Amino acid sequence: MIATPKSLAIEHLEAFRKVVGHSAVFVDKEVLSNYAHDETEDLHFLPDVVIKPSSAQEVSAVLTICNQYGIPVTPRGAGTGLSGGALPHLGGVLLSIERMNKIIDIDERNLQVITESGVITEVLQEAVKSKRLFYPPDPSSRGSCMIGGNISENSGGPKAVKYGVVKDYVMNLEVVLPTGEIIWTGANVLKNATGYNLTQLIVGSEGTLGIVTKAVLKLIPLPKYDLLMLVPFRDPVKACAAVSAIFMCGYTPSALEFMERDALEFAMRFIDNCIVPIGDDVQAHLLIEVDGNDVDVLMREIEGISEIVMQFDCGEILFAEDAQQKAELWKLRRRVAEAVKANSIYKEEDTVVPRAELPLLLKGVKEIGKKYGFHSVCYGHAGDGNLHVNIIKGDLTDEQWNGSLKKGIVEIFELVKTLGGTISGEHGIGLVQKEYLPIVFEETQMRLMKQIKKIFDPNNILNAGKIFD
Amino acid sequence: MIATPKSLAIEHLEAFRKVVGHSAVFVDKEVLSNYAHDETEDLHFLPDVVIKPSSAQEVSAVLTICNQYGIPVTPRGAGTGLSGGALPHLGGVLLSIERMNKIIDIDERNLQVITESGVITEVLQEAVKSKRLFYPPDPSSRGSCMIGGNISENSGGPKAVKYGVVKDYVMNLEVVLPTGEIIWTGANVLKNATGYNLTQLIVGSEGTLGIVTKAVLKLIPLPKYDLLMLVPFRDPVKACAAVSAIFMCGYTPSALEFMERDALEFAMRFIDNCIVPIGDDVQAHLLIEVDGNDVDVLMREIEGISEIVMQFDCGEILFAEDAQQKAELWKLRRRVAEAVKANSIYKEEDTVVPRAELPLLLKGVKEIGKKYGFHSVCYGHAGDGNLHVNIIKGDLTDEQWNGSLKKGIVEIFELVKTLGGTISGEHGIGLVQKEYLPIVFEETQMRLMKQIKKIFDPNNILNAGKIFD
Repeated sequence: MIATPKSLAIEHLEAFRKVVGHSAVFVDKEVLSNYAHDETEDLHFLPDVVIKPSSAQEVSAVLTICNQYGIPVTPRGAGTGLSGGALPHLGGVLLSIERMNKIIDIDERNLQVITESGVITEVLQEAVKSKRLFYPPDPSSRGSCMIGGNISENSGGPKAVKYGVVKDYVMNLEVVLPTGEIIWTGANVLKNATGYNLTQLIVGSEGTLGIVTKAVLKLIPLPKYDLLMLVPFRDPVKACAAVSAIFMCGYTPSALEFMERDALEFAMRFIDNCIVPIGDDVQAHLLIEVDGNDVDVLMREIEGISEIVMQFDCGEILFAEDAQQKAELWKLRRRVAEAVKANSIYKEEDTVVPRAELPLLLKGVKEIGKKYGFHSVCYGHAGDGNLHVNIIKGDLTDEQWNGSLKKGIVEIFELVKTLGGTISGEHGIGLVQKEYLPIVFEETQMRLMKQIKKIFDPNNILNAGKIFD
Repeated sequence: MIATPKSLAIEHLEAFRKVVGHSAVFVDKEVLSNYAHDETEDLHFLPDVVIKPSSAQEVSAVLTICNQYGIPVTPRGAGTGLSGGALPHLGGVLLSIERMNKIIDIDERNLQVITESGVITEVLQEAVKSKRLFYPPDPSSRGSCMIGGNISENSGGPKAVKYGVVKDYVMNLEVVLPTGEIIWTGANVLKNATGYNLTQLIVGSEGTLGIVTKAVLKLIPLPKYDLLMLVPFRDPVKACAAVSAIFMCGYTPSALEFMERDALEFAMRFIDNCIVPIGDDVQAHLLIEVDGNDVDVLMREIEGISEIVMQFDCGEILFAEDAQQKAELWKLRRRVAEAVKANSIYKEEDTVVPRAELPLLLKGVKEIGKKYGFHSVCYGHAGDGNLHVNIIKGDLTDEQWNGSLKKGIVEIFELVKTLGGTISGEHGIGLVQKEYLPIVFEETQMRLMKQIKKIFDPNNILNAGKIFD
């Protein structure tokens, strides 16, 4: 039982200062409020203390104190999460990994990188890119999100369709357990059949099982060329149908993104001087990228894909002419989420289904929206079957928003399950989706997960109340 | 405490017959002895009963009985394992998955297959190949091993270097827990951030956490072309050094296999009419394959790779001229293990290191061999850093073989750990490697794994004594 968590964290301030130094412990209101929210809806929870350790040893020392006294700890990367995983909803200690921000070794001989977990994803990508290496997983927030957060959420991003998600790049992790023990989960190798896969148990565990302090990540050779096309469709459902057709013909694009008309329009209004002409009858776009080391092959792929999408009643395809136009199109896509969110109060659902079921999912979402009176803006990583459904508050009353809307969300998730999918592809369950988890897991899986949590965190101090209660 | 396991299994024969039918329960000596061994050294343990259920429900019914009465259960695929995972060393029930051998649905729309776990890997590969789809992971035993066994061991095979191992293809599993509960671990999707990754916890758990009855596997488009080359080297260490050089130049072969001279010679003696000329001064070979959809690109890759290997003092490269020659070369490689084993009593170690450390590993293995007086034949998936070290009994006395040799193996594994690797890349820990597991895991990881085992299998009935005691 955590009786009075707030006072407990403050009570042990001196102990924290002793183990991490005065300059790593913050209690002033301004700092606390900076760490009170992430990118999940409009949720705010003040921590009692913010601690910024600089090493696994310091993390261990902090956790040891918290474990001894039952002080809640919320680990945090950059706070760009979309399911509330980094929200300190129980107060207590907010443990930021931001000072563990060194890339330790880019190992060009073995195509791997050893990094601290507080490194910003884009910083890591650029560092390895300078050595012609590639770390593909990058959420839209890559400019600010951190490797540690990405690992906790098993993030994806646009390249996942060809290159896989974070879990496919994590070979070994240094993790501090809630009990203060520091472990490495595996080895720095591409294949491993040595005991249970503790590495993959930590990936995607949303900071509930341990705090990742270092990661050994697989790298691949950087593809030399890419081509990008933007395909407009009159019918969003047909745009979704085109997605699986492309893969069925043997193509594997390096990105295949879907955006409803609203999504792109919001993004254009949000970003200055970034305009793509959209015909009046256009209702959705696919942004399709291919990459590789041979331009001729890519040209043929783009031609082949063009022929396929034309069978789905598309409009005139825009082929990005140069690096600048590619960058602009990607900027539009990457900032859709922000733009949609700036436009209205919203709830974002992170549905994922087998990709050929996307048309049924989109149709279903719109029908459920009609039934419950909500408008949604949909976009996402269509190649993975991952559709972000942004439900817009619009004219809904607070009563509807906080009440009957939930039934609509449940219906969406039940549809997702029926289609072979699940309720989060890359955002995680965190705080705001946990009530829906029993839609996809029965009592047995829930029990297994809760027991696993208990093994790692017997006193339930670390990110308690995330994923499940 | 399991007091008298043998009598217990026999005592409940009627109960087993009741739930799976008479024709699925075997107690005659001949059948029992067929299931008393796998491909691990010369180890034999007779089970008391062999049961061949036909469905998850039947597996559940059997496990429920065993769980109630504390009867040991050993799950088994095709018995091709190399670490003793399928050996019924405690007697009791041997549960074979061989009757669950239906491919349920090749889903061409979603590039995935739903299959029962008793399907033979090659059968599955051929079935999806007929639809121009590809399931890459295939151990050398692909003609007899089963998908369920591959999942339990997180198998690799020669294509892993480009396409990944089993874990990279498993999306969702139907698993019967030792308590008899039937669960699905995930969803049929490419990305998933919904709760702990139970799927990846089951993959590679060597049948200790549950029995996989169905699997949803990712497929990819079948590459249209491949080219194969066999490169002879005078110095095996230089052959190993060439491996990482190839990747550092940006090439990703679809297979990159290493064979010491002995390995290839044993294989040629083992297989009729399959001869590759080997120069007197040749001490090792690399078998290198590239694949893709464009022959010109592959030709350029093969040329580029040729230039690289030539810097490592290689002999004349053999380029496979046609499908038949490719098949022969692959046959030689795939049967090396059998051939080496037919030649002598042996112990096989499944070392894996970051690939650029292979030269140091090979050198170290030979030095340790000299120190302890053993000869080793080394081969394996060099592109993954996965070197199979076959220690040959040869002139060693039984005392040396069963005594001091162990020190040599410990030294090899300690070297592997120092190089950032681990003690099994794809064969698993099973029965014969468990004494070495503490070399790579400390007490904390061992404790976590044992506690996880306990959650899934509170009465310790399922493959008890495998991976750890």
